[in-house]
Amino acid sequence: MTGAPAFDIASLHAFYALGGTPDTIIGRVFARLAEVNDPGIFLHISDREALLAEVEALGPFDAEAKPLWGIPFAVKDNIDVAGMPTTAACPDYSYVAAVDATVVRLLKQAGALVIGKTNLDQFATGLVGVRSPYPIPRNAIDANLVPGGSSSGSAVATAQGIVSFALGTDTAGSGRIPAGLNNIVGLKPSVGALSTAGVIPACRTLDCVSIFALTVDDAWRVFDTTARYDAADAYSKDIPASGYGSLPPVLSIGVPAKADRRFFGDATMEASYENALAMLTMLGHRVVEVPFGDFYKVANLLYEGAWVAERYAAVKPFFDANEASFHPVTRKIYGGAKALSAADAFNGLYALQALKQTVQLLIDAVDVFCVPTAPSHYTLADLAAEPIRENSRLGTYTNFVNLLDMCGIAVPTGKRADGLPASVTLLAPSGRDGLAASLAREIHQAAGVSLGATSWSLPPAFPKPARIDEDGMIDLVVVG
Amino acid sequence: MTGAPAFDIASLHAFYALGGTPDTIIGRVFARLAEVNDPGIFLHISDREALLAEVEALGPFDAEAKPLWGIPFAVKDNIDVAGMPTTAACPDYSYVAAVDATVVRLLKQAGALVIGKTNLDQFATGLVGVRSPYPIPRNAIDANLVPGGSSSGSAVATAQGIVSFALGTDTAGSGRIPAGLNNIVGLKPSVGALSTAGVIPACRTLDCVSIFALTVDDAWRVFDTTARYDAADAYSKDIPASGYGSLPPVLSIGVPAKADRRFFGDATMEASYENALAMLTMLGHRVVEVPFGDFYKVANLLYEGAWVAERYAAVKPFFDANEASFHPVTRKIYGGAKALSAADAFNGLYALQALKQTVQLLIDAVDVFCVPTAPSHYTLADLAAEPIRENSRLGTYTNFVNLLDMCGIAVPTGKRADGLPASVTLLAPSGRDGLAASLAREIHQAAGVSLGATSWSLPPAFPKPARIDEDGMIDLVVVG
Repeated sequence: MTGAPAFDIASLHAFYALGGTPDTIIGRVFARLAEVNDPGIFLHISDREALLAEVEALGPFDAEAKPLWGIPFAVKDNIDVAGMPTTAACPDYSYVAAVDATVVRLLKQAGALVIGKTNLDQFATGLVGVRSPYPIPRNAIDANLVPGGSSSGSAVATAQGIVSFALGTDTAGSGRIPAGLNNIVGLKPSVGALSTAGVIPACRTLDCVSIFALTVDDAWRVFDTTARYDAADAYSKDIPASGYGSLPPVLSIGVPAKADRRFFGDATMEASYENALAMLTMLGHRVVEVPFGDFYKVANLLYEGAWVAERYAAVKPFFDANEASFHPVTRKIYGGAKALSAADAFNGLYALQALKQTVQLLIDAVDVFCVPTAPSHYTLADLAAEPIRENSRLGTYTNFVNLLDMCGIAVPTGKRADGLPASVTLLAPSGRDGLAASLAREIHQAAGVSLGATSWSLPPAFPKPARIDEDGMIDLVVVG
Repeated sequence: MTGAPAFDIASLHAFYALGGTPDTIIGRVFARLAEVNDPGIFLHISDREALLAEVEALGPFDAEAKPLWGIPFAVKDNIDVAGMPTTAACPDYSYVAAVDATVVRLLKQAGALVIGKTNLDQFATGLVGVRSPYPIPRNAIDANLVPGGSSSGSAVATAQGIVSFALGTDTAGSGRIPAGLNNIVGLKPSVGALSTAGVIPACRTLDCVSIFALTVDDAWRVFDTTARYDAADAYSKDIPASGYGSLPPVLSIGVPAKADRRFFGDATMEASYENALAMLTMLGHRVVEVPFGDFYKVANLLYEGAWVAERYAAVKPFFDANEASFHPVTRKIYGGAKALSAADAFNGLYALQALKQTVQLLIDAVDVFCVPTAPSHYTLADLAAEPIRENSRLGTYTNFVNLLDMCGIAVPTGKRADGLPASVTLLAPSGRDGLAASLAREIHQAAGVSLGATSWSLPPAFPKPARIDEDGMIDLVVVG
């Protein structure tokens, strides 16, 4: 990609500021699509001429007025983009959206350009990225590995440098797992921070729109552009995009107690996680081991409990009439929900409430949690052999998060000893997205890894986040 | 009752302070029981000798250390009192409780004396007070009228002056309707403020323990004694008993818009409600008409939606094995819940969430709401003719309250033109119990009505609640 800028927003905006044109960047997008040559990533690609017309309408480059001016992005295909089909990876369910989802509208208003709609685990049910009737997106780092899901196409498109960022959704980890498996950033906002209006529900009480990006700064800029209360979404909350760029000098960081860590035999992943914790200590933070049994119990509720009925409720008439249109694994999961009673649903809510009461004490005891994003990498062959078990294992550190109303961000921590991506996820209580993202930025900078599957480097950290002392004073970093 | 003090706490404590003994008061309790001679009020009555032994253990009178020293109270029979049977008005379900419910324990610790367990609509399902296999408690004001439920026995015991206060429960209005129909105060705390540990659930996500009392001051003292976070109740919240006794000079009081008021033809109740609103205006407050359609839609969810499945879930094994043990009306309601699916339950939650979003704007627009407690009085004959419809009508202004996480207090406003009790309920957002109670106190004083079915008067208002100006200054009322 000689001569073209990296696709992080800072590099693209520097390119535009120096007179570069979006036409050039759109050209790079299509060239990159051809180079990558993975028919599994996009289920629909924008018309090139239409994109150029959109660029015309943007007016002159102005990053103040339009903070995402000329930035190409992809949209998971369970999120509506006006005039494009929404399939949820279920062709028989497909419809052409009349209006943009709220988040898509906000991004377009900020100057961003929709490149296309991306593949997913059907109806966003899965963490593997292979439960789709379309070709499976290839993991951007190693084509033998599962790409992770359910937002597989969005993560791979970002990791491959085809787009600067992409929208996913995250109910059980779909915005974090594929980020971790493809060496990019995955920001899973506080529940309700981003509107789900125009998004096909998975579990309406838990669904989040999520953000894949090459850098934490970019993910935050997208979050800052889209975190808006929306009366069109009954679960919308007014969660301000605040607190990014400043960190207390010493954070108390909760991690699963050693005995409670689960890597299912992947010693390489375990070692990379320990390295990440050592990095946090070197950065001056305090790592605190926390018993994790109750978090796992919460996680189990998501698929073993009543919440799977939310997935069924979301498409009930379609499922009841068109069971055969479903992916076999998805069909089995949804079909199981039909037998659940309303009493089962409330018993699930009670079980969650009881666990919340004990887990809240642990959450209150630390500033933020740092968990492995995924416990292991799995190959496509592993998945074929154990389609349910390995999917479930991938959710070890993600399934409980939305049930506990936490925000999270997956961030690369470097390469494992075998060269595969390592990643941790930082978790914080609802509304503390800025804190989690600030720590993620610090980790990403310390990790010094290239972005996604590209050779691009993390752009220089400028301005460096100020550090806030515990007494509220700011340590100014004077350069030069 | 010549020579004996009134049973409000101030009068009883004045009696004790002057050397009166609890033995005398216990004597009055049993004498009053005999005078009233209503076998429907209590399902279990404490042993008199055991009560006298309890009094011995209290030590000398000390209202500072024990704010309910020597105060007799009754407990609805879905709340455990150690050593007594709990029946929930379903004899086959009965068990002897091993330990006190948390609220009962706190009250005993504060020096209060359990006189007995009171009758109720079976499993606290109903607002009428006649769905019990035991004799029906008589309305304390007019024996032709329904007593109101589900906490019928507790309300009648208080209104008859047998006890100073009584515990009820309130899921759909069971702590407010019988207060309104028996001319007493019914405090329905914020959801979670009082522990439900040791209480047979109706709808666990909505259940409240409630307080019947002769005066607002007494209800507040009981609330102040029992509002404690309890780790034994997963839905417990830390809601401080604060804000009582001070009122801004002008409250903005939301009332149903004229066109949205429902009295089902009871013009006398309508007139008494209009009188109450005129009283609020005379007290200096601002009455604001609010569209009430969405509140009624929320109310409908409680019995037409999925929440009835919570009732079924609470006693599922018992119901499945012993359907015939249930009251016919209760049995029909619970049986209907068996057919509801988990998808139905979640669809109910979604419908509520959507309504909450619009209703919240109305709630935010005022300080407090003032609604009729009940839209009408019904006779026992009315109920026999329409057992479901009249019950449902009674819940017009109560059913939506817990679903919207509000607190409420029913307070007498005087007599209707026909001499029957008139009552309004003040509603406020969660945690503002003190505000609602302060306004209720002001109304009760202005109404100047005798207490319950007794000839006792409201004790003199001392100390008078201070008024807080909008700028936070306190207007001191200088007496003499």
